[in-house]
Amino acid sequence: MGTYSRRQFLRDAAITGAAVSAINTPLKVMAAEKKSIVRLGMIGVGFRGQSHLEQMLKRNDTQIVAMADPDKVMMAMAQKIVAENNKKAPVEFTNGPHDYLNLLKRDDIDAVIIATPWEWHIEQAIAAVHAGKIAGVEVCGAIKLQDCWDVVKAVEKTKVPVMMLENVCYRRDIMAVVNMVQQGLFGELLHLQGGYEHDLREVLFNDGTPNTGPGVEFGDKGFSEAKWRTIHNMNRNGELYPTHGLGPVATMIDINRGNRLTALSSVATKARGLHRFIVNHPKGGPNHPNAKVNFKEGDVVTTQIQTANGETIVLTHDTLSPRPYNLGFRVQGTNGLWIDNHAGGFDEGLIYFEDKSPKKHAWENPKPYMEQYDHPLWKKFEKDAEGAGHGGMDFFVANAFIECIKRDAEFPLDVYDLATWYAITPLSETSIAEGGKLQQIPDFTVGKWQTRKPIFGRNSEY
Amino acid sequence: MGTYSRRQFLRDAAITGAAVSAINTPLKVMAAEKKSIVRLGMIGVGFRGQSHLEQMLKRNDTQIVAMADPDKVMMAMAQKIVAENNKKAPVEFTNGPHDYLNLLKRDDIDAVIIATPWEWHIEQAIAAVHAGKIAGVEVCGAIKLQDCWDVVKAVEKTKVPVMMLENVCYRRDIMAVVNMVQQGLFGELLHLQGGYEHDLREVLFNDGTPNTGPGVEFGDKGFSEAKWRTIHNMNRNGELYPTHGLGPVATMIDINRGNRLTALSSVATKARGLHRFIVNHPKGGPNHPNAKVNFKEGDVVTTQIQTANGETIVLTHDTLSPRPYNLGFRVQGTNGLWIDNHAGGFDEGLIYFEDKSPKKHAWENPKPYMEQYDHPLWKKFEKDAEGAGHGGMDFFVANAFIECIKRDAEFPLDVYDLATWYAITPLSETSIAEGGKLQQIPDFTVGKWQTRKPIFGRNSEY
Repeated sequence: MGTYSRRQFLRDAAITGAAVSAINTPLKVMAAEKKSIVRLGMIGVGFRGQSHLEQMLKRNDTQIVAMADPDKVMMAMAQKIVAENNKKAPVEFTNGPHDYLNLLKRDDIDAVIIATPWEWHIEQAIAAVHAGKIAGVEVCGAIKLQDCWDVVKAVEKTKVPVMMLENVCYRRDIMAVVNMVQQGLFGELLHLQGGYEHDLREVLFNDGTPNTGPGVEFGDKGFSEAKWRTIHNMNRNGELYPTHGLGPVATMIDINRGNRLTALSSVATKARGLHRFIVNHPKGGPNHPNAKVNFKEGDVVTTQIQTANGETIVLTHDTLSPRPYNLGFRVQGTNGLWIDNHAGGFDEGLIYFEDKSPKKHAWENPKPYMEQYDHPLWKKFEKDAEGAGHGGMDFFVANAFIECIKRDAEFPLDVYDLATWYAITPLSETSIAEGGKLQQIPDFTVGKWQTRKPIFGRNSEY
Repeated sequence: MGTYSRRQFLRDAAITGAAVSAINTPLKVMAAEKKSIVRLGMIGVGFRGQSHLEQMLKRNDTQIVAMADPDKVMMAMAQKIVAENNKKAPVEFTNGPHDYLNLLKRDDIDAVIIATPWEWHIEQAIAAVHAGKIAGVEVCGAIKLQDCWDVVKAVEKTKVPVMMLENVCYRRDIMAVVNMVQQGLFGELLHLQGGYEHDLREVLFNDGTPNTGPGVEFGDKGFSEAKWRTIHNMNRNGELYPTHGLGPVATMIDINRGNRLTALSSVATKARGLHRFIVNHPKGGPNHPNAKVNFKEGDVVTTQIQTANGETIVLTHDTLSPRPYNLGFRVQGTNGLWIDNHAGGFDEGLIYFEDKSPKKHAWENPKPYMEQYDHPLWKKFEKDAEGAGHGGMDFFVANAFIECIKRDAEFPLDVYDLATWYAITPLSETSIAEGGKLQQIPDFTVGKWQTRKPIFGRNSEY
């Protein structure tokens, strides 16, 4: 019985009320392949979806059956990519934002990749699993806390899994640090930092053309992310994009697998960056209509997170000011620490280990450690990752998604991770709205975190 | 009327109930010298006090009249320093911890420098101003919040001022950044970070001898700071040493002078470092009596602070783990940011300005900016600062103290700064004890922050 049909059976069994617990045995990591081809539907083929599409077209174990996106310009771009890869044109679903539901009705699709505007992720993931389709869901934060519970409950009910497609977990230096953590180089972990420190102003505003030329337009007048992402910064004030910073450090301290996030508090600076960008832009100026828009999102949002096992995490969301890209990682344990000031180069951060560094109290260049502890996955798939998005890490997140589906294996980043990480956003918004007040973080595993075993980065296949 | 006698008069007038408001005119910055010699008493002549003593002995406008310290070993070291500088031996007050009160009774002392264990600072500062002695007070955090109010009220009542001796405010790179901030290079400030990230384990433990040889002893069996500082880490859990990180950034955003700190929340990691140090030390081990001590202080303590003007500050206290020294500064505004990863070298951090950096989204070495904006004070006193403690910055804090006394001028870092910065410690302890709960930070100026004008780093004399 293939993955798809087995899951379909389980879902049907659940729906018809049959007892399923006996056959719901734990999925084994590294199980043999049970399926050789994964039939995919793409939900959302904007620039991010197109990047996933390219990854999937390169593989010989996937087939792109259908694509849904109401944006016909993006759909045409996506079809062009398929054609350039000499693959059969997937069926299109472009009839408005809900046409993805028709894609989900097809019986020739095993799994979908959801790369849509943030406000659609949860609704689409829930619809997918209810339609028996495994869902790989792009990063973002939840719109409201209840969404996180809803997607968890949908997966628990349908037994159709969801993977959190957090690519930064697979960044080469991050994977090397994961390896170092697992081999005990840092000792017992204490404090971690991460964030999204990326000047997005030219992503949030453009001239509205598919060339995404420079401009100060957004919403209906914008193109690509400027169409929808900017509006989140207008109406919300919180840690809007937590997973790139949180995901990697969460895997290092086994969140939802022996540990959990317990509470957070968030603070935001004043909001200046977007208004300033519009006013100072050659196509903007103080009299441009968008100069009157009141953007709510604070320029820098900081979130302190506590964990059940006594580590602390600080997240920084910093996307509206001029600055070099940096996810600001810090991984600190009883034996030393690593900090990252750039964008993932092996020699760009600073590292120190009490029992290894030659000079006391002096930083080392992390490169020799990064090379020595380069993760087996990266060593194995280095060539395959070449040219993949975001420095190769996109290959790995795609690979994990597909290989787990083929093996009917547990996703290394699953719906509990998705719910926990996504939840940071609405909780941070509440915290900021309440002046920085402490918020409890729900346990979406409802106690299962105590017995679930860590799996991320622990095999050399995916 | 000299400073001392004028202040003494003011104090007496206040005590006798005479109306003093008419003569309590604002002190002018850059006023002419009213006093050529400042007569000093040293309260606390441990290693830190000895460093102040050396600074003061180098000057031709100071006279060391008396020294108080119950530790006769430290007193002998201090007298040796005086003798080596060919100065007259100051009168000694070594008869127990309260003998400093007899020093304060002398009528030939204008000011005292308080460099004692943390738990004595406030009591001694209050006693000093009540005795008509201007007090320069070393850094630390308060033992309890009320202490901060008490020292403020003592200064307000006696009209005898207190200076906060925060030397890091005078670090050369910090002063250059202060200059850049004041000249608008960063735009409007948004987010600041600082901390005390310094592996203190070999300060907190030694072999108890005046050679401070390696060991795992503290308290009665320790020497110097191991005698008392370690005990704070045993009994408390909080941001124990906030001012090195907070002071410099507070001056940049005009705290207590147009702005104020409003609220904080703190989180602490588990406490592992000190126990681990004892257990792993050649002179310690799992059977050493100190291996049974339960140290309460979390290895890394993080504090989020909000301000009235909408900036945020993150402080990190990280002194119990192996790591290179770094105060972790970040100064970020609407036009760019600077981060510090080392110990203050001009070329050790990273900087970026939207309107100046040649390459978009790419860090620059801060050295050219640091040189161009090197603070006038540093340019002027570079030679005098050579050889002074902590890379020269100790010269500047001593210079500000003495020059302000000579001119009867307002201290650039005053009792409101002391109270506000010291208050972080007890507030952080409460926050951590309450699971990270938000704490309101009192306004020790009781509204005066709204009209007080910024003065730090705004003249080239001190």
